[in-house]
Amino acid sequence: MQAAELWERYQQWLYHHADLDIYVDVSRVSFTSEFVESMQPQFVRAFADMQALEGGAIANPDEQRQVGHYWLRSPELAPSPQLTQDIVSTVASIEAFADKVRSGHIAPAGHPRFTDILSIGIGGSALGPQFVAAALAPSDAPLAIHFIDNIDPDGIDAVLQTLADRLTTTLVIVTSKSGGTPEPNHGMTEVKAAYGRAGVEFAPRAIAVTGKGSKLEARARDEGWLGTFPMDDWVGGRTSELSAVGLLPAALQGIDIRAMLDGAKHMDAATRIPDLTTNPAALLAMSWYWLGDGKGTKDMVVLPYKDRLMLFSRYLQQLVMESLGKARDLDGNLVEQGIAVYGNKGSTDQHAYVQQLRDGINNFFVTFVEVLLDRPHPGIELEPDVTAGDFLCGFLLGTRQALFDNHRASITVTLPEVSETAVGALIALYERAVGLYASLVNINAYHQPGVEAGKKAAAGILDLQTQVLQALRASSSAMSLSEIATAIAAPDRVETIYQLVRHLAANNRVAIAAGDLSQPGSVRLTLS
Amino acid sequence: MQAAELWERYQQWLYHHADLDIYVDVSRVSFTSEFVESMQPQFVRAFADMQALEGGAIANPDEQRQVGHYWLRSPELAPSPQLTQDIVSTVASIEAFADKVRSGHIAPAGHPRFTDILSIGIGGSALGPQFVAAALAPSDAPLAIHFIDNIDPDGIDAVLQTLADRLTTTLVIVTSKSGGTPEPNHGMTEVKAAYGRAGVEFAPRAIAVTGKGSKLEARARDEGWLGTFPMDDWVGGRTSELSAVGLLPAALQGIDIRAMLDGAKHMDAATRIPDLTTNPAALLAMSWYWLGDGKGTKDMVVLPYKDRLMLFSRYLQQLVMESLGKARDLDGNLVEQGIAVYGNKGSTDQHAYVQQLRDGINNFFVTFVEVLLDRPHPGIELEPDVTAGDFLCGFLLGTRQALFDNHRASITVTLPEVSETAVGALIALYERAVGLYASLVNINAYHQPGVEAGKKAAAGILDLQTQVLQALRASSSAMSLSEIATAIAAPDRVETIYQLVRHLAANNRVAIAAGDLSQPGSVRLTLS
Repeated sequence: MQAAELWERYQQWLYHHADLDIYVDVSRVSFTSEFVESMQPQFVRAFADMQALEGGAIANPDEQRQVGHYWLRSPELAPSPQLTQDIVSTVASIEAFADKVRSGHIAPAGHPRFTDILSIGIGGSALGPQFVAAALAPSDAPLAIHFIDNIDPDGIDAVLQTLADRLTTTLVIVTSKSGGTPEPNHGMTEVKAAYGRAGVEFAPRAIAVTGKGSKLEARARDEGWLGTFPMDDWVGGRTSELSAVGLLPAALQGIDIRAMLDGAKHMDAATRIPDLTTNPAALLAMSWYWLGDGKGTKDMVVLPYKDRLMLFSRYLQQLVMESLGKARDLDGNLVEQGIAVYGNKGSTDQHAYVQQLRDGINNFFVTFVEVLLDRPHPGIELEPDVTAGDFLCGFLLGTRQALFDNHRASITVTLPEVSETAVGALIALYERAVGLYASLVNINAYHQPGVEAGKKAAAGILDLQTQVLQALRASSSAMSLSEIATAIAAPDRVETIYQLVRHLAANNRVAIAAGDLSQPGSVRLTLS
Repeated sequence: MQAAELWERYQQWLYHHADLDIYVDVSRVSFTSEFVESMQPQFVRAFADMQALEGGAIANPDEQRQVGHYWLRSPELAPSPQLTQDIVSTVASIEAFADKVRSGHIAPAGHPRFTDILSIGIGGSALGPQFVAAALAPSDAPLAIHFIDNIDPDGIDAVLQTLADRLTTTLVIVTSKSGGTPEPNHGMTEVKAAYGRAGVEFAPRAIAVTGKGSKLEARARDEGWLGTFPMDDWVGGRTSELSAVGLLPAALQGIDIRAMLDGAKHMDAATRIPDLTTNPAALLAMSWYWLGDGKGTKDMVVLPYKDRLMLFSRYLQQLVMESLGKARDLDGNLVEQGIAVYGNKGSTDQHAYVQQLRDGINNFFVTFVEVLLDRPHPGIELEPDVTAGDFLCGFLLGTRQALFDNHRASITVTLPEVSETAVGALIALYERAVGLYASLVNINAYHQPGVEAGKKAAAGILDLQTQVLQALRASSSAMSLSEIATAIAAPDRVETIYQLVRHLAANNRVAIAAGDLSQPGSVRLTLS
C-alpha cells in the first residue's frame, strides 16, 4: 500500500472520542472492506447480546448469573430500582469511609491516622487495584498500598517485614467474593497471626469486601471488623475494578473514583452504539477476529509507552485470557478458544523482545498505548528541540513503522494523559471489546470453569498429602514410596507422593531414613 | 499413558544436579525415543559449536565478536591469560568497592554512608539487576536499589520523587556499553539536571559500567566520577548479569556474588557435557524443539511458584526472544525464528490466565519453577498438617496434573531454595539452553539487528520532528499538515507528521490555529 493510500486509510478508520479525547487507530490491521461487510451479521448479534446483557439477561448461563459491571457506572441502567440504589449508596459509602480514614476521623487508637493499606486478594481482587495504584496513586498518597496476592509464605513474610513497624497504622482489606478461596482466606490467617505476634488487634483494622451472606461477611460481623463492603454476585472478579473491589482502595489512596466511573460511563456510551465502524470496542473486536482468524492464532502484545501503565498488560492478561480462553462454545462444541496476552512497556521492551517481534516468528500483533502528555511541567531539551517525551514518542512511532514494514500488524490506543477519567475509559473499552469478541466466537466470557477445576485438583493433592503423613505417622518403620502408595491405596499416585515428600523433606517435616531423593526408588522415609 | 508408565518415564528422564540439588523434569513433554535418537546429530553439532564458542571462536559472526559470558564464571577458560586476569581482577575490584561503600569507607561528604542506588540502564543492563534484586536482596539490604529503565519523563520524575530527600546519599550507576544508547544517556542527563537543581554534586556519586574506550568512559574520566567498571565487548547485554553489570549492584546490596558465580560455574560444568540425555540444558533445548517443531510454534509460559522469582519470566523474555527471534539463519535463509515467552508467578496466575491454559487455545507449554524451601522458619498450620507452603506446592502439582490431563505440556525446574547459588545456576542453565537451541535451528543467538534498526527508525522520526518545527518556525502563517509535508519535501510522511504534531500540541509546543486534530485534514498549526 502506498503512503497516500495508507494516510487515507488512517484517516478513514481513525476513531476519536470527543469528550474523552481518546483515539483508536486500527489502520495498521490489514482487514479489507469485504471482511468488514462480512462481519456485519455477527456484529448485529453481538450488539444484541450486549443489549440483553445490559438489560439484565442471564448472560453467564453456566453459573446462571447476570453480568452487571456496566451498571456500576450507569446505575440507572440496573434492572431494578433496588439495585440502582445499592450501587449509588455503595459508592457514597466508600467515599464517606475513605474521607474519614484520610482525614483521621477513623484512625487507629493512639495514632492520628492510618498510614498503609494491606490488600489481601488474588486474581481480579488484586490485578485491578495493582494496575490502578501504579497508574494513578499520587506520589504523596495519604495511604501507601501493599499487596498479598499469593500464598507464598516467603512472599507474605516479605510484605509483613516491610510493614513490621507500622502494623498498628495499617488497614487490612480482605477481598474475596465467597470467602472460601484458599489464597486470600489463608493469607488473612497468616496476617492475623502476625498481628497477634505483634500484639496489635486485628479486627479494628480489618475491612472485608465480600459477597452478601459469605463466610467472610459472617466472620467480619462476628469479630467486629472495622467495615464491610459488598462484592455483588453479578460482578465477576476480572470486571470488578469499578466495584467496591477497586474503588475502595483507590479512594483511600486519594484517587478520584467519581472521575474513574465517569470515564468508564462515557466509554460505555460510545461502545454501546450498534455500529461496527464507529464503535471503538467493535473496531478492536473486529481487528482481533481478523488477526487471529477468530481462533486466537495471534498473541496480543500490549505495549504502553508510559511507566505508570506497565501493569495494564497484566490486567488485560486476565481480562482477555480468562474471559476468552474457553474449551466449549455456547452450543457445547469443543472450540479451545482464547487470545494470549503479554507485554510490559515501551520503549523498555524494545531492548528486550521487540527484536523477535520485528524479525522473528510472526505470531502476534501489537497494541501500542500512547499517552500524549509527557509530564506536568515542560521538560528539558536533551538535544536541540528534543525532550525525553519526544524520544519516547519517536520510539513508539519508529517501532510501529518498522513492524508495519515487516508485515506485523499493530493497533494504537492514544490517551491524552494518565488520568482517572482515561483509566476508567480504558478499562471500559477493553471490557466491552472482550464481551463483543466473545459473542463473535459464541462463547461465555463470564465464567471460569478451569479455575474451579484447578482448585479441586489442588485440594485432591493436599488430601493425598494428609494421607501420606497419616501413613507415616501410623508406621513403626521407614517406608518406601511404593509402600506409602500401597498403604493409602493410591498405587497410581507414586509420582505425586514423591513430589509431596520431596517438598516435605525440604521443610523438615519428613526425614530420609535411607536412600536418596534423586533416586526415588531408593528412598525410605519417616516423620521428622 | 498409564500411571505406572508415566512414573517410569518420570524417573527415566529426571535430571538431578548433586551439588546444586537442582532438578529438571521433562517427562510431561511427550517426545518419543525415536525423536531423541533423531536429534543426536544436531546435538553433536550444537555441542561442537558450544565448545568452539567457549574456546574463543567468533560465535557472533555478524558483529565479528567472541561470546564470552561463560568465562566470567570460569576465568581459567578465557582464551588468553590477560583476559583471565581481567575477569578475576574485576570481580575483586567490585567486591572491594562494594565493601568500602557498605562499610562507609566510601561515603558522600558529610554523611556516614550511601543509602540508595539509582541504576540507569535499559534492556540487559536493567533486567538482570532487577531480577536479582527481587530474588536475592535481603530485607535489610545496606543500600536500596531503584531503576530508571526507560525514557518516560513521568517515570523518571516518579523515581526522582522517591529519592528527593536522599539524592545526597544516592549512588548513581549508569550502565551502557557504548554510552550512545539514547535511553540511559538521556536518563543520565535528566538525573544530572535533578542533582543540579537540588544543589548536589553528581560526579562524586556517579559510577559508569561501560565498554573500554566508550564515550561514557571518557565522560566519567573527564568529569571525575567516583568509579568505572568494565563492560566487555564479548559479553552481550542479555548475558551480562554475571559481569560487572549485574555483580556491582548485587554486591552493593549485600548479595554474595561469589556464590552466584559459583552456582553458574557448577551449572556450566553440567551443561558442557556433550550428552543430550544427561545435560539439563540439552534436555530443555530438545524439549523446546519438540514442542514447537523447531519453529517456536508454542509460546513458553514461565510460572515460578515463588514471589521472589516473579521477574524471572521478564528476564527470560529477553534472553530467549532477543536471542532466538531472528529473521535469517546462519546460511542467510529467511526463517523467522523465535519462541515467545510470558508469565508472572503461581499460584497468582491461576486466578488470571491459567483458565485459558487449561481449557483454551493450546499454543504454549508451561515451565514451572518450584522452590522446595517454603520459608526459613516453620510455618503455621492453616489446616491440620497443611501450611501455606503446602498450598503453594499443591497448586503447582494440581495445575501440572490438570494441564497434562488436558494434553498441555510442561517442564518443571526444581530449586532447593532461592539462594545466590541457585539463581546463578538458573541463569547459567537458561543461557546454555538458548545457545544450544540456537545451534539446533542454525541461527546467531548473539546479535540483535532489529534493535539497531529500531534505533535508526526512531532517529529518523526525531529528525522529521526537527524539520517540522523548523518549517513552522520559518513560516509566517499557520500551516496545514500537507503544507508542512510539502515544505520539508516529505509528502509521503503526512501521517507521521500528524502524529508528531499531535504529541507536540499536547505538550504546548505547537498550537492549533484552526481546525481540530481529530479531523487531520482540517487542522492548521503554528509554533506555541
